[in-house]
Amino acid sequence: MAGSLAERTLARPSFEAAFAAPAFLQAMFQFESALASAQAAEGLIPADAAKAIEASCRGFMIDIEAFVASGKRSASLAVPLVAFLKMDVGRHASHVHVGATSQDVLDTAMALCLKTCLDETDRALEAAVRALARKAREHRGTPMLGRTLMQPALPITAGLKIARWAVALADDRERLAEAAEAGLAVQLGGAVGALEGMGKCGPAVRHRMAMALGLADARAWHSHRNAWLDLLGRIAQVVATAGKIARDVSLLSQPEVGEMLEAAPKEGVGASSAMPHKRNPVGCAHALAAATRMPGLLAIVHAGAIAEHERALGGWQAELATVPQMADALGGAVDFLETIGSGLVIDAARMKANLQAHGEGRSTDLGPATDELLADLAPYLT
Amino acid sequence: MAGSLAERTLARPSFEAAFAAPAFLQAMFQFESALASAQAAEGLIPADAAKAIEASCRGFMIDIEAFVASGKRSASLAVPLVAFLKMDVGRHASHVHVGATSQDVLDTAMALCLKTCLDETDRALEAAVRALARKAREHRGTPMLGRTLMQPALPITAGLKIARWAVALADDRERLAEAAEAGLAVQLGGAVGALEGMGKCGPAVRHRMAMALGLADARAWHSHRNAWLDLLGRIAQVVATAGKIARDVSLLSQPEVGEMLEAAPKEGVGASSAMPHKRNPVGCAHALAAATRMPGLLAIVHAGAIAEHERALGGWQAELATVPQMADALGGAVDFLETIGSGLVIDAARMKANLQAHGEGRSTDLGPATDELLADLAPYLT
Amino acid sequence: MAGSLAERTLARPSFEAAFAAPAFLQAMFQFESALASAQAAEGLIPADAAKAIEASCRGFMIDIEAFVASGKRSASLAVPLVAFLKMDVGRHASHVHVGATSQDVLDTAMALCLKTCLDETDRALEAAVRALARKAREHRGTPMLGRTLMQPALPITAGLKIARWAVALADDRERLAEAAEAGLAVQLGGAVGALEGMGKCGPAVRHRMAMALGLADARAWHSHRNAWLDLLGRIAQVVATAGKIARDVSLLSQPEVGEMLEAAPKEGVGASSAMPHKRNPVGCAHALAAATRMPGLLAIVHAGAIAEHERALGGWQAELATVPQMADALGGAVDFLETIGSGLVIDAARMKANLQAHGEGRSTDLGPATDELLADLAPYLT
Amino acid sequence: MAGSLAERTLARPSFEAAFAAPAFLQAMFQFESALASAQAAEGLIPADAAKAIEASCRGFMIDIEAFVASGKRSASLAVPLVAFLKMDVGRHASHVHVGATSQDVLDTAMALCLKTCLDETDRALEAAVRALARKAREHRGTPMLGRTLMQPALPITAGLKIARWAVALADDRERLAEAAEAGLAVQLGGAVGALEGMGKCGPAVRHRMAMALGLADARAWHSHRNAWLDLLGRIAQVVATAGKIARDVSLLSQPEVGEMLEAAPKEGVGASSAMPHKRNPVGCAHALAAATRMPGLLAIVHAGAIAEHERALGGWQAELATVPQMADALGGAVDFLETIGSGLVIDAARMKANLQAHGEGRSTDLGPATDELLADLAPYLT
Repeated sequence: MAGSLAERTLARPSFEAAFAAPAFLQAMFQFESALASAQAAEGLIPADAAKAIEASCRGFMIDIEAFVASGKRSASLAVPLVAFLKMDVGRHASHVHVGATSQDVLDTAMALCLKTCLDETDRALEAAVRALARKAREHRGTPMLGRTLMQPALPITAGLKIARWAVALADDRERLAEAAEAGLAVQLGGAVGALEGMGKCGPAVRHRMAMALGLADARAWHSHRNAWLDLLGRIAQVVATAGKIARDVSLLSQPEVGEMLEAAPKEGVGASSAMPHKRNPVGCAHALAAATRMPGLLAIVHAGAIAEHERALGGWQAELATVPQMADALGGAVDFLETIGSGLVIDAARMKANLQAHGEGRSTDLGPATDELLADLAPYLT
Repeated sequence: MAGSLAERTLARPSFEAAFAAPAFLQAMFQFESALASAQAAEGLIPADAAKAIEASCRGFMIDIEAFVASGKRSASLAVPLVAFLKMDVGRHASHVHVGATSQDVLDTAMALCLKTCLDETDRALEAAVRALARKAREHRGTPMLGRTLMQPALPITAGLKIARWAVALADDRERLAEAAEAGLAVQLGGAVGALEGMGKCGPAVRHRMAMALGLADARAWHSHRNAWLDLLGRIAQVVATAGKIARDVSLLSQPEVGEMLEAAPKEGVGASSAMPHKRNPVGCAHALAAATRMPGLLAIVHAGAIAEHERALGGWQAELATVPQMADALGGAVDFLETIGSGLVIDAARMKANLQAHGEGRSTDLGPATDELLADLAPYLT
Repeated sequence: MAGSLAERTLARPSFEAAFAAPAFLQAMFQFESALASAQAAEGLIPADAAKAIEASCRGFMIDIEAFVASGKRSASLAVPLVAFLKMDVGRHASHVHVGATSQDVLDTAMALCLKTCLDETDRALEAAVRALARKAREHRGTPMLGRTLMQPALPITAGLKIARWAVALADDRERLAEAAEAGLAVQLGGAVGALEGMGKCGPAVRHRMAMALGLADARAWHSHRNAWLDLLGRIAQVVATAGKIARDVSLLSQPEVGEMLEAAPKEGVGASSAMPHKRNPVGCAHALAAATRMPGLLAIVHAGAIAEHERALGGWQAELATVPQMADALGGAVDFLETIGSGLVIDAARMKANLQAHGEGRSTDLGPATDELLADLAPYLT
Repeated sequence: MAGSLAERTLARPSFEAAFAAPAFLQAMFQFESALASAQAAEGLIPADAAKAIEASCRGFMIDIEAFVASGKRSASLAVPLVAFLKMDVGRHASHVHVGATSQDVLDTAMALCLKTCLDETDRALEAAVRALARKAREHRGTPMLGRTLMQPALPITAGLKIARWAVALADDRERLAEAAEAGLAVQLGGAVGALEGMGKCGPAVRHRMAMALGLADARAWHSHRNAWLDLLGRIAQVVATAGKIARDVSLLSQPEVGEMLEAAPKEGVGASSAMPHKRNPVGCAHALAAATRMPGLLAIVHAGAIAEHERALGGWQAELATVPQMADALGGAVDFLETIGSGLVIDAARMKANLQAHGEGRSTDLGPATDELLADLAPYLT
């Protein structure tokens, strides 16, 4: 569950689920299971111990409230996790969590949960870019007012505006994929990040775990989190683009302007508790709320990165608490992009009317930029 | 529930509960109930309709997941709330939510939930100031190194350092109470904040509601939220003070320094998943995590305050999602203050040893500031 | 000078001047002069030494570039200041800066510079509230569309909207004055904030300095800065209100809406480098740029407040660098408020037309809120 | 000039100079000159007009104060720039600034100024990584306490800690170079970003300008600034790494710990105005101040990116004012990295002593991570 009721009305259900207690617990157990498997393969622990641990990790039954209370007392959810596993596997207890530390479990679990969201984001971005690219091509010759500093400027095409949105999203998508490849990494460093406690096998264990979990194999990032920050920054960029598009759509949806709607009106969507006749631009609300939240959330994870020594006191914990909210904000942005991808309504007649009323009617040069952008979008226009 | 597992390990259970779904729902129903009562008292709706609405508000049974899904579709939790109530009271439906709007319900509910946390904070602050003031008096003559820019400077007394903490908390407490008095206000403005739809009775209804709910009676603050921002800023100040104290305590708890501990070691508190011998300063971790989160959260609510017209698109929603996280951060700070209030350990011998090793041993002037501060703390030293 | 060329085009010249090098230097010398005077009055230093120091502080000639370079080497501007003074007063050198530390000089100088800006802000706020209150009264019966979530809702009066702006500014003004009274305080604590090095006279010296400098007399706030944070937070609130008003004005100035202009078009104001016909809402640009900057700046000073021991390493220095930018943002907001105070143009005919086209034409209940707010504004309507 | 005196003591002189008025003006004139040259080459304007414009751009004499005042009236520095040029070239006036808009000039100038800083940063990062990599290799077998949550954990090597710093900086350097290649782009889009007003030649003109100015050739980024945001985010990452290293160094420099110094004590560096015996870690102060400022500054540019239509009202202007401050913060970080690159002092004996006093003395497994990291640093160890 992503948080308060108010936060939940801004969240995307699948992203909420990705970070909800069951999913996060499962990810922590995946870490311990993969650790045991890898250590057995490297001969660090007996095969039957690994099997017992894997079985326990599959069938865990946890009292969430007790788990949280214990995690709070130790400032780490890994403490009750390891205690549970050790008790559950009985005589194999000494083979649980060997050479690992709390941060290994929690960072890896966080990466696994975020990965689910980013895979879905990638698909949603692709679909949105495709849909917008098609609309841009369709409206490559539809003139409308270009507006700067909130005042009419010169004419553009609707295609230019939409193609710019699409190209921005396509660029964001590429940058996000690149950062995810580096930033979604397994964490394994042990108590002080030295890979101590596994003899010389640490790197091999880490590599096996990365393969098993579908994450990158990276040097311990306990206290130097820039690949991760880079990924979070790129998530923020997607949200900024969605926010910018939502800003445009909401401005164009004002009935006095009337040039676009995020989607054709639908029963129950955007209803008002006070005015039955009203339809609110709910998708824009989600995207703009996300874009309002994200700069502050990004500031938090950057502030949290100034870690003390081999593990931070406060900064890292603040980051752990903030990443799920960044995922929620991303979810709001993705919801909005799906909404406009499938539903964006364009009123070419109103565009023309506004242009005549407020534009420099005489200008007919719409510039070559629309074509340039459409060329950039070719891969999405097949 | 306050959010992700990681966030929950930083949260204070009673503050989590204050914003959890059941409490927030209850607060929304309290709003509708108080509205109906006040409108009946003013003759705007029939007394039996009010009674039916009050009863429905007391005995509500809501499917949270369906409620959230509907709230998401309309970008407002008030829409399913009102729908539920109208259905539940049957023939009185037309008397539900008269003259009110979504933001009225949600802002009032948020104020009610936050009030619970602030009442508890006030008590915790008072206790912490009392405890620290006593320790400061006890150590008014205990010399220790004063340190600036992370280097030894001149001697101070342990009493000076602790008295400064206590005075800062006492000042924060006073400022917080003052801002709560103004900022914890009922919201009632109707669809556009004009109090339309209740004839001339709007102000009287609002006043009755404020009295009934224990909130301030204020002009509609839909789109001008500075009294509320002021309150959130003062919450951030409490967290900053707690963070500053935790920074000091964590520095003094380094074994190479060894002058303070947040509390005597306790079984199970601060345990490590990797090192059984280790005791982590969990209280400091909570306070410093809170202090790392708060500046970004405060930035969000300030950014969200640049509202469009009579109700914001995005900014207000972002604020609603952020306030519970600010309450969580406050909860972490309060937990820490309780920890040190009851447990702070001071090692005067180590203070003396460090002073001799690293201080200007010759200085014996400890300054009059300790006494000044203790005088300020007199009300807490009775 | 307030900073880069770009920053300067957003700044208010008088606020720039208030923090420019000459003014800041002067404020630092004012501190040293007041310190010497107060210490002579208390018999801590000889009267002729004080006279020599005061004279030197009046007639200082400083090479700014060398001063900055030295300040950078020591991470403190007070080091070259004190070196200059000691050399300048020759045989009285040992009576310069007695019992004071860098932070005493710098914090006091910062408070003095900010005071200049806040005094001017108070006058500007008063004028803006008066002007807006009059316009609100004038348009208490002018109907216009109320808009929520960027869509038409129910009718309001233009008076309601403008009165809300005015009341928000009046409240901000009051809160700002209150916080300035507490937060604009002399800083005097000495090396570790203990008032050591002046025998028992420290508090008396501090009190004399406060009187002489027109600042509050407060316990040393080297490491607990919440009264100061509170003041900075309230500055941020003024900027948020200005930003909110600018958001409204810029939306209403869209020619498709056409209900307000920040001011009647003037030669040279809002000119465009590309489009001679265009007039940009320059005042709104200033206020919205300020409102975009402020949340992040506020986050910085809150983050900087988590000080280490008796003086922070990094956090305090970050705050010193940030406060002038907050003053610049405030200046942008004040400029905007002056613009609309003298110039706001209201087009009641367009309001009526938009209301008929997009509103629920049938509603005639404009609510009692306009009158409530005008009553609140009575002190400004004399 | 970078700003207030306080800000200047945190700034790096060469970075200050890069954004100071003369440099920024020059960059704006470089834009106009390159525009005229490119347009002449494409046959859009006569060759002699281009020559006249180029000459005027080389020999400009501007009254900065009048320039700023005019820039403020129009909310754009390009307005007085173009006015100056048109007057200066007399009969060629109609060939000045053809097809360009304010944002083209300002964004390009900002990119040029930032480029200077980034080129220097790249060299400083390379040198710092080389120096730290050598120290890490030298201390690959020097045991010291690993510390987590501010408490002793298990032993590491000094080489591990320093190698991690070095690898983090090397990674930052690579990411920064990559982002600079994409983000340091010419801006040319014209009034509404459509490249209108140059017939079909717009893209060719833009390409020629990019080549001439040493910037990337990119589609107009007036209103979609993610490549630029990405670059600013990576600048923030460098600052975060420097801040993290400074946190470590400042903790290890506490005399009670005594394991490292940022540099051997030097006359005049780190002097105190109150305590002649004291040496402050000035480099750490610069880096930590930068790291405290950066999250808030990054939040501002992300918030500013939610642009309205084809050019933002407020957000873009806020960004323009913020980028020079980000460069200043980067400069502070670079200064620190140079300090420790040349000066870092390591006390292996104190490391050993602290390890024996507070560590698990029995552990001798220092883990394979040091070797892994040194292998990553091979390119810097030649």
